[in-house]
Amino acid sequence: MKVINVDLGERSYPIYIDFDLLANSEIICQHIKSKQVLVLTNETIAPLYLERLLVSLSAYQVQTLVLPDGEQYKTIDTVTTIFDSFLENQYGRNATLIALGGGVVGDMGGFAAACFQRGVPFIQVPTTLLAQVDSSVGGKTGVNHPLGKNMIGAFYQPECVVVDTQVLKTLDDRQLSAGLAEVIKYGLIRDPDFFSWLEQNMPALRARDYAALSYAIERCCLAKAQIVAEDEKEAGVRAILNLGHTFGHAIESGSGYGVYLHGEAVAIGCCQAADLSRRLGYLSASDVERIIAIFQRAGLPTKPPKNLSTDDYLAFMGRDKKNIDGHIHLILLAKIGWAELPVTVDIDTLVATLENYGAV
Amino acid sequence: MKVINVDLGERSYPIYIDFDLLANSEIICQHIKSKQVLVLTNETIAPLYLERLLVSLSAYQVQTLVLPDGEQYKTIDTVTTIFDSFLENQYGRNATLIALGGGVVGDMGGFAAACFQRGVPFIQVPTTLLAQVDSSVGGKTGVNHPLGKNMIGAFYQPECVVVDTQVLKTLDDRQLSAGLAEVIKYGLIRDPDFFSWLEQNMPALRARDYAALSYAIERCCLAKAQIVAEDEKEAGVRAILNLGHTFGHAIESGSGYGVYLHGEAVAIGCCQAADLSRRLGYLSASDVERIIAIFQRAGLPTKPPKNLSTDDYLAFMGRDKKNIDGHIHLILLAKIGWAELPVTVDIDTLVATLENYGAV
Repeated sequence: MKVINVDLGERSYPIYIDFDLLANSEIICQHIKSKQVLVLTNETIAPLYLERLLVSLSAYQVQTLVLPDGEQYKTIDTVTTIFDSFLENQYGRNATLIALGGGVVGDMGGFAAACFQRGVPFIQVPTTLLAQVDSSVGGKTGVNHPLGKNMIGAFYQPECVVVDTQVLKTLDDRQLSAGLAEVIKYGLIRDPDFFSWLEQNMPALRARDYAALSYAIERCCLAKAQIVAEDEKEAGVRAILNLGHTFGHAIESGSGYGVYLHGEAVAIGCCQAADLSRRLGYLSASDVERIIAIFQRAGLPTKPPKNLSTDDYLAFMGRDKKNIDGHIHLILLAKIGWAELPVTVDIDTLVATLENYGAV
Repeated sequence: MKVINVDLGERSYPIYIDFDLLANSEIICQHIKSKQVLVLTNETIAPLYLERLLVSLSAYQVQTLVLPDGEQYKTIDTVTTIFDSFLENQYGRNATLIALGGGVVGDMGGFAAACFQRGVPFIQVPTTLLAQVDSSVGGKTGVNHPLGKNMIGAFYQPECVVVDTQVLKTLDDRQLSAGLAEVIKYGLIRDPDFFSWLEQNMPALRARDYAALSYAIERCCLAKAQIVAEDEKEAGVRAILNLGHTFGHAIESGSGYGVYLHGEAVAIGCCQAADLSRRLGYLSASDVERIIAIFQRAGLPTKPPKNLSTDDYLAFMGRDKKNIDGHIHLILLAKIGWAELPVTVDIDTLVATLENYGAV
């Protein structure tokens, strides 16, 4: 088993990575300090893995809440049903919430845990590649708003993250590719060697070669743990993790949540960010080609949807969390393996990317 | 001007207390780091004080959101309208929220600020005595749930608290008395001298003697600042601030939010807590009489509503935040000026208080 520590002082916690960790009662239970446990999952994951987790939790008083599956349910209304479940079962401030699922379940579970009675302990058990390499680590929790993705939320760290790599066996191909988008992102922002490794090993990853997937998960979690430890609340370097996300969030929100998977929108967004970086003189044309190529080889879309207008993009991007006093700030790439901190972007060049990317 | 510091390391902030502070642009503006400001208030306060505050904010881009007035609107749905307002105006993560109002506006404003884009700065400008002495200080923010008061929220500290004592001139008598309930609470939990002072000065306070009110506000804010600095997230001593609140919250939730003012319910709850403390051998009968007498002299109810059954109480109290694994924990009084940390209460004695208090 691999253990990676997220070093945040008194809020530090371990990420455990191993095969069949759901059945490892000892690992999970050492982080539960209460008798009362609420397991949050969704209708896709429940039939596959809920029973296995419940066996590991046999020593506790466990309630289960099964949510519908999909980004379109990542709303305040759904979080309210989690509060209802806590209260109907007379659960208190020391009850533990366990989020068993992908990024949507983890983000909502974490946000519900942050807000119920002003904070109860929670544990992340991510079941998608995307959640394992990215969203379950670092304490960003929240829900979407019709006017913008992840607009409502909290920084709230889990007690631990339990990454059971066995669950990737049942992950569907589209979800696997979506996870690879965030994996590629780590190579792009700070790790050119890993990017090269990904170029060589993409077929193995898509064939679910266990050793390749485990290596990629560890490397991503290490990178994320390091960046989060340096800048928990995104006052500085943590923002580079948002490469492609401002475009991507506009695509997700503008297309209607659930049409694009988050990873798919991030893949397109990274390609748009690369295009913009080239137009602004940061990135070479050959690097842009390499970037588009690797996302394609990961089975991901790289062209933006046709039904979003430039005005649509600008409206959504104008509400992005990195903006300052209404000015759009974006993460740009200086080269493969190096992202710049957010910069104010010249609107004309941004519009050129929005209107001409893909035509170049 | 009196300045009291709430000492919380990097989250420390000042409480300013003075007459006509709303017109003191310098004090407020030094805590605003953004161009974008959202002023949150309610329909009662807006016609009285909004204009005066807006004059002080003339250097900023200001949007105003006026909420309906009353505890029954302290809901997630109302907080959602605050998020809408932020997003419709393209406000970003450095926008400042100013909560101009009583406890309901402050609690919801703080919670919205805690959650919008995972946290924006906010400033408390409390306009009721209750908010000035208690709810605006210490970072407890949140909303009610049909099954329990303040069940959803966050610990989130403001940039500063601006207590303009002039606004108490227009506070209605019922609201003034409700504020006095929390003032008396500070005497009960840790400050017997202040309790005696309150016994002597109750007529002056109710007559809005400015010197007496100012002294009481300062003494309460000092006490709260000290307790919060010692225990920000209520792992220990902070719980004594909840004297009477578990009973009181049951009365508020069980009667329907808005029927009782929070301070009224706390007054009744303190009397019930005193009764229970006597039954359990903590408090003398003469102290109970003194306690009931001072709440009566403050113009507050001291007898519980007749329409709440023992089962109603136990259901609401069973969901209280101080409970552990489903057991009811309450703050008891050992004497006037000394509250005990939460203890598990014998249910039979609790039932005796619920059924027989007032008949003794």
